[in-house]
Amino acid sequence: MSFIHDDFLLETKTAQRLFHEYAANLPIIDYHNHLPPADIARNRRFANLFEIWLEGDHYKWRAMRANGSAERFCTGDAEPYDKFLAWAKTIPQTLRNPLYHWSHLELKRYFGIDVLLSEKTADEVWRIANEKLAQPELSVEGILAKFNVAALCTTDDPSDDLAAHIAIGKSGLRTKVFPTFRPDKALTVNNPDAFNAWINKLAAASNTDISTLPELLDALDKRHAFFHEAGCRLSDHGLSACYADFPSDFEAAAIFDRARWGKAASPDEHAKFAAHLMLHFGRLDAKRGWTKQLHLGPLRNNNSRAFAKLGPDTGFDSIGDLPQAQALSSYLDRLDQEGNLPKTILYNINPNDNYTLATMAGNFQDGVIPGKIQFGAGWWHLDTKWGMETQMNALSNVGLLSRFIGMLTDSRSFMSFPRHEYFRRVLCNLIGSDVERGEIPGDDELTGSLIRNICFENAKNYLGFNLLEETSK
Amino acid sequence: MSFIHDDFLLETKTAQRLFHEYAANLPIIDYHNHLPPADIARNRRFANLFEIWLEGDHYKWRAMRANGSAERFCTGDAEPYDKFLAWAKTIPQTLRNPLYHWSHLELKRYFGIDVLLSEKTADEVWRIANEKLAQPELSVEGILAKFNVAALCTTDDPSDDLAAHIAIGKSGLRTKVFPTFRPDKALTVNNPDAFNAWINKLAAASNTDISTLPELLDALDKRHAFFHEAGCRLSDHGLSACYADFPSDFEAAAIFDRARWGKAASPDEHAKFAAHLMLHFGRLDAKRGWTKQLHLGPLRNNNSRAFAKLGPDTGFDSIGDLPQAQALSSYLDRLDQEGNLPKTILYNINPNDNYTLATMAGNFQDGVIPGKIQFGAGWWHLDTKWGMETQMNALSNVGLLSRFIGMLTDSRSFMSFPRHEYFRRVLCNLIGSDVERGEIPGDDELTGSLIRNICFENAKNYLGFNLLEETSK
Amino acid sequence: MSFIHDDFLLETKTAQRLFHEYAANLPIIDYHNHLPPADIARNRRFANLFEIWLEGDHYKWRAMRANGSAERFCTGDAEPYDKFLAWAKTIPQTLRNPLYHWSHLELKRYFGIDVLLSEKTADEVWRIANEKLAQPELSVEGILAKFNVAALCTTDDPSDDLAAHIAIGKSGLRTKVFPTFRPDKALTVNNPDAFNAWINKLAAASNTDISTLPELLDALDKRHAFFHEAGCRLSDHGLSACYADFPSDFEAAAIFDRARWGKAASPDEHAKFAAHLMLHFGRLDAKRGWTKQLHLGPLRNNNSRAFAKLGPDTGFDSIGDLPQAQALSSYLDRLDQEGNLPKTILYNINPNDNYTLATMAGNFQDGVIPGKIQFGAGWWHLDTKWGMETQMNALSNVGLLSRFIGMLTDSRSFMSFPRHEYFRRVLCNLIGSDVERGEIPGDDELTGSLIRNICFENAKNYLGFNLLEETSK
Repeated sequence: MSFIHDDFLLETKTAQRLFHEYAANLPIIDYHNHLPPADIARNRRFANLFEIWLEGDHYKWRAMRANGSAERFCTGDAEPYDKFLAWAKTIPQTLRNPLYHWSHLELKRYFGIDVLLSEKTADEVWRIANEKLAQPELSVEGILAKFNVAALCTTDDPSDDLAAHIAIGKSGLRTKVFPTFRPDKALTVNNPDAFNAWINKLAAASNTDISTLPELLDALDKRHAFFHEAGCRLSDHGLSACYADFPSDFEAAAIFDRARWGKAASPDEHAKFAAHLMLHFGRLDAKRGWTKQLHLGPLRNNNSRAFAKLGPDTGFDSIGDLPQAQALSSYLDRLDQEGNLPKTILYNINPNDNYTLATMAGNFQDGVIPGKIQFGAGWWHLDTKWGMETQMNALSNVGLLSRFIGMLTDSRSFMSFPRHEYFRRVLCNLIGSDVERGEIPGDDELTGSLIRNICFENAKNYLGFNLLEETSK
Repeated sequence: MSFIHDDFLLETKTAQRLFHEYAANLPIIDYHNHLPPADIARNRRFANLFEIWLEGDHYKWRAMRANGSAERFCTGDAEPYDKFLAWAKTIPQTLRNPLYHWSHLELKRYFGIDVLLSEKTADEVWRIANEKLAQPELSVEGILAKFNVAALCTTDDPSDDLAAHIAIGKSGLRTKVFPTFRPDKALTVNNPDAFNAWINKLAAASNTDISTLPELLDALDKRHAFFHEAGCRLSDHGLSACYADFPSDFEAAAIFDRARWGKAASPDEHAKFAAHLMLHFGRLDAKRGWTKQLHLGPLRNNNSRAFAKLGPDTGFDSIGDLPQAQALSSYLDRLDQEGNLPKTILYNINPNDNYTLATMAGNFQDGVIPGKIQFGAGWWHLDTKWGMETQMNALSNVGLLSRFIGMLTDSRSFMSFPRHEYFRRVLCNLIGSDVERGEIPGDDELTGSLIRNICFENAKNYLGFNLLEETSK
Repeated sequence: MSFIHDDFLLETKTAQRLFHEYAANLPIIDYHNHLPPADIARNRRFANLFEIWLEGDHYKWRAMRANGSAERFCTGDAEPYDKFLAWAKTIPQTLRNPLYHWSHLELKRYFGIDVLLSEKTADEVWRIANEKLAQPELSVEGILAKFNVAALCTTDDPSDDLAAHIAIGKSGLRTKVFPTFRPDKALTVNNPDAFNAWINKLAAASNTDISTLPELLDALDKRHAFFHEAGCRLSDHGLSACYADFPSDFEAAAIFDRARWGKAASPDEHAKFAAHLMLHFGRLDAKRGWTKQLHLGPLRNNNSRAFAKLGPDTGFDSIGDLPQAQALSSYLDRLDQEGNLPKTILYNINPNDNYTLATMAGNFQDGVIPGKIQFGAGWWHLDTKWGMETQMNALSNVGLLSRFIGMLTDSRSFMSFPRHEYFRRVLCNLIGSDVERGEIPGDDELTGSLIRNICFENAKNYLGFNLLEETSK
């Protein structure tokens, strides 16, 4: 039997039935990822397996470094095939890591490859994959069709002109492709060079002058409106922890002014300025009915030598352990008091925060929008079978799993869509086990609709996407 | 087969045998709850299912809000039946939440109802339950007898006159009903209005004048003695974390004086005053051989809008993530150094604290009282199958499960007694699985006595309750 | 069937096959423990079961105190047999605690005893064990041979003359016995009496004068070199958390000078001095190619009364909850920037730190040494089946289990070698379950080599021990 067989991860008859009858054929809404919209706009073709699979994947680089593979095979100047070979040598050493499952699932679903990847099979895999990649079925558009992707949301800077999104919107592509408003750079008053360069880009994009804080807030509002026009319905923030030391307008403006003059904000000033802007972003999201995403908890760029050479997002980020509860509570409460709390998804990278965040969500449910505050799917280092299970178990224990909007890939690669299948298998396995242990009733109508909702309907309804009928039904 | 059948949650033959032979028929000692003693004293009858089931249950309200039910169906002015109907619509959405298990177990044990509650079955459930509630078997006294409740402990303010408890004591009720001394309001020097109002109530109750801190400490001692007379053997404290910045008597008195004059204590002063009083409470408990309960870790009243409208304990509390270890260690150590460390139960609301607290208990076991420092049962958001299992697993791994005093409901409702059955099933399932996996010997004498002790004997012996022979045997 | 039978803890056929065919017969490398080297040098014989089993075991004392056994039966002056009897009475109460498994595994492997220990069987166990202990097979050398111990590393103070190690080295003992450099006392500038006493011992050992900080650093280097000569390849540090407030050389020297004059360092000064020395220790380890061990997170000596009577390491230490991530990151990064980051093993005592540390390791893998930064085996309160499983699951999910160097006992007793067997059973059970659930391929070559590597080969290669061929193959 193949390693990736029909009932992979489905340990019970009930799980198998639920997956195949309810989950397998649903369209995908990948509402948060880091795919390059330009690749979609130009319907990119991939020259080889390296390009589509390894080009920007810092998960794989981390595994390779831990396995003793030199940097030239990760981010360096080795040949594509040699990099692939280094990965092929690494993968048998990733046993029990999600990369082992993901990789084999991807090879199977994209290329029909069933052998286990290793140094021995590397040649064969490289050859078969590259042959398939040469076919239009594995162009970006081919992939989106093949995986029945109803909608996907990229991650974009407010200063972005969204040209690719606009082009895609006009192209009639059946997959809806939306931007996400991610204004992290607006908070960087602690780094005036970066801050001012970005402010200038933003000013240009919004066709305005930004010399005061009110002008910045206004420019952000304009970009927010512009993103809205382009179909954007989500914002996103990557934070170590929430900011909750809210300054007066006057204080915030003073910090802004100093940063514009090139004086770096102190840690306290930075935190205050960030708190101020995060309130503004909350108000913008509330005003336009968007959903705010808070990604909480990483400790980034731990390795200074690597950062100097390779920059951010290259595989040197780990799990932080700052407290989250009080500041998050203050932030949500402040917006709620104003009547400006948008729909919000809380993601944590430290599994210790599962119960903290899952119960925090419960404090701000408003009795109007079902599941208004979401405890988001297992993220990054927690995007694993175990991470998914513990996230869903925490949500189940202290909230309503039934209102969960489910999976997203957060990926930079077009090879990651099978992770939705992976999630669905994990979900169905969880529910199937519960049924067979008698912990939930053995009623397929009840459990099947739960699964259908989590895999598709909840995200569609919650995010309010306007999907093509034929795609979403 | 019914959802709630004889072997519900009992996955192995051994678990089934252990539950039915050892656990099922033991009396209940519910040593911590929030039941209204007046309802017991007057042997309350419940007009309908709303009154006994939904009237004050913030667990259900949280679920309803998360499901999009409007506040009027939770705490508002909707009709009882409409509130019940809103709950009936919510419950299928609570699949995998403990409410789903609890509710169906309760419907079955109180009313013999076997259907799954939903909008469709709401009418039938309402009708049957209300018919049964009209019978004396489901008066408060009927319920206590039906569930073989040997003893229960309510939660009471030191200024309470305990009139209901005294009346119950005289009534000859077979269930022993004791108060618990919960002096949280004595710490509120940060809120002088509340503090002074409460001090005045306490002064009246203790028939004394309280204008100095020594007078307050003395009044508390008098009330402690009065509670002791009424059978009280437990105190209880709800804290975000322990206080361990111990002030001098002089400093504490100054903080008290300022609060009495209406000046709010600063956070530091409040923490010092609380530390001072917590030492006093420890000494009182040690003096009278009581057991102190520390409930550690919630983040309360997160939602200011809701708090302004609905007040505390209405479903807006979540799990905090403050550090607990050092301050708790200092507090216990300080009392221990004085020879004033009472029996103590440590409860945590953040599951991350399981191992911290379970090992902390081990630092202060005195070689005299078995299990003197208890790591308490899964509490509040952790009062779930998973919460119980992880609490018992942590205790097992780093302490002695065999000395655990087991379950309590912490409930505000007379419908919650089946949670003891629920706990016993979870416990027996855990032990049964261990036996069938060969991790503990398959010796019913050994495991059966473990179970009997955890479900009943340990609590009886540890708490030192004087139970009626025929009830407890 | 015996409680400890051939397939104890091995729940699947695959697990059983993997254990018996791949793991069972591998030699042991116990690369971190607290065994007294003098006992090895003199080939100690044990007069009775108390001496070898209970003499210094604070795990057992904690359990006994929690069970209500008086201190005289733990650390006090009771007769050896009476202490053993108190332990025998306690052990049935330790059901589900690792002591229950460990103890019965030890009785079986050392003495062939198959009965469950209890008050009833105490006499018989005492008699049989003592008879066997009278045989040379259970002398220290007999034990090392019986358990096929290829190498073990004790824990030693830099001022130690390593006389026992040198004698063992010359003796031709087939088990390699190496010291470990544990310089915790070098950090104690907050306690000048202890610090100065230790500095004087160190000065004597290194035959030098230590009146300035550079002289201290130099003396430590000399001792490090001396340990290296004696085969030492590991250092070890026991820390609540890392120190990352790095002072200038000048600041550090000033703190040293004040401590030498008898003035205790403030907490801040202590932290700075410790940070300074930890960098020095990192450089020494890097220079000589050693492996650094960081044991992070305990809260020690919680019970002041017990500490005053019994001193440290007597069973009053528990799990702390300080944050770990940022300071650990800074420490590793600082050494890495200098090119002085040695191979490092990160151990945590709080299970909440599993994912934090496992991902932190991934930030500093260098693409040269496979698994250069190790996330270490479940330690102390986590040295349990659950602790091992969660440590290996965390490592698997976010790193490479395949590069894990596996188990160590950390024990003070010569009865603890079966814990390697225990670990191997847990590992094989984990892998076997994965195979039978289809989560990893059912390929014994793949899984068997994983197991062999984790149980033996990885430690041998990573630590670079020069083992006798016939022992290690």
